[in-house]
Amino acid sequence: MEASVTLALSQLPYVYPAKPSCSKAYTFWPYKRRSSQPTRLHCNKMYVPGFGEASPEAKAAKNLHNFFNYIAVKIVSAQLQSYNREAHKELMEFLDRHSLNDGDKFCANMMRESSRHKNLALRIMEVRSAYCKEDFEWDSLKRVAFKMMTDSNTKLMREYVSETSPQ
Amino acid sequence: MEASVTLALSQLPYVYPAKPSCSKAYTFWPYKRRSSQPTRLHCNKMYVPGFGEASPEAKAAKNLHNFFNYIAVKIVSAQLQSYNREAHKELMEFLDRHSLNDGDKFCANMMRESSRHKNLALRIMEVRSAYCKEDFEWDSLKRVAFKMMTDSNTKLMREYVSETSPQ
Repeated sequence: MEASVTLALSQLPYVYPAKPSCSKAYTFWPYKRRSSQPTRLHCNKMYVPGFGEASPEAKAAKNLHNFFNYIAVKIVSAQLQSYNREAHKELMEFLDRHSLNDGDKFCANMMRESSRHKNLALRIMEVRSAYCKEDFEWDSLKRVAFKMMTDSNTKLMREYVSETSPQ
Repeated sequence: MEASVTLALSQLPYVYPAKPSCSKAYTFWPYKRRSSQPTRLHCNKMYVPGFGEASPEAKAAKNLHNFFNYIAVKIVSAQLQSYNREAHKELMEFLDRHSLNDGDKFCANMMRESSRHKNLALRIMEVRSAYCKEDFEWDSLKRVAFKMMTDSNTKLMREYVSETSPQ
């Protein structure tokens, strides 16, 4: 039995906001660049609509935040399983009744369940912070994402070409 | 009207795998560290169960990969809206019928829809690669995630204390 942990990454608006302020290049595929410093008019990055005050980086960080909470729950659960079966059972029962989609909501609810649950929640919060700041390999994340992008694009094109080429 | 884009981050197994191989510290909250080099016995990181051959970094990269695809669709859609209404309409119609949860599947389906859709898919693949490798601010992601962790933990504890303290 598994509990599905789905995280809402974002909402895709059907109606996109007003045109970007970057100067337009009238090529077939114009690159609109967004500026990382809004007060300057350097349009050196592609314009990403629909994030308002936030940024794609903040959105991605929010999802990683929930992911770190999920990881912390796994770490603490594995620890408890080996030395505190009762607390492990309580954590499993709590997981049955509460979603991990929103990590902060999960911890907030757990803190209010009982004093034993409160200690568990504090432990999860401690572990998720330590994991994010010390254990998670940020350079590896970037390296793997770059490779995944190159490999996926190559694979998609290769498969399409092999399907559509005459035998 | 909005299309919900939910990305399955991971599955939480109820039954955790065997105990970690790191040496145990019999404190109340033992830190089990995982080794980044499995062939050596340095347990300098917390043990994260349930990822098998993969790693949390690879899991996070996979989710970012789908996120970059989603961002690329937004970028291309905004571009088309300003200079190619017909292609924009086709993209919107395709989005109505296909989920963005799996970016590669989305592109694979789009390439096979029609020759015009194929060009759109190639553009999305080009943009997602450029966005991942040039525009996305990886340092900012890490900085925001660190701050979010500290702020969230402080907020959770502060709210709990203020709720449970006598007035």
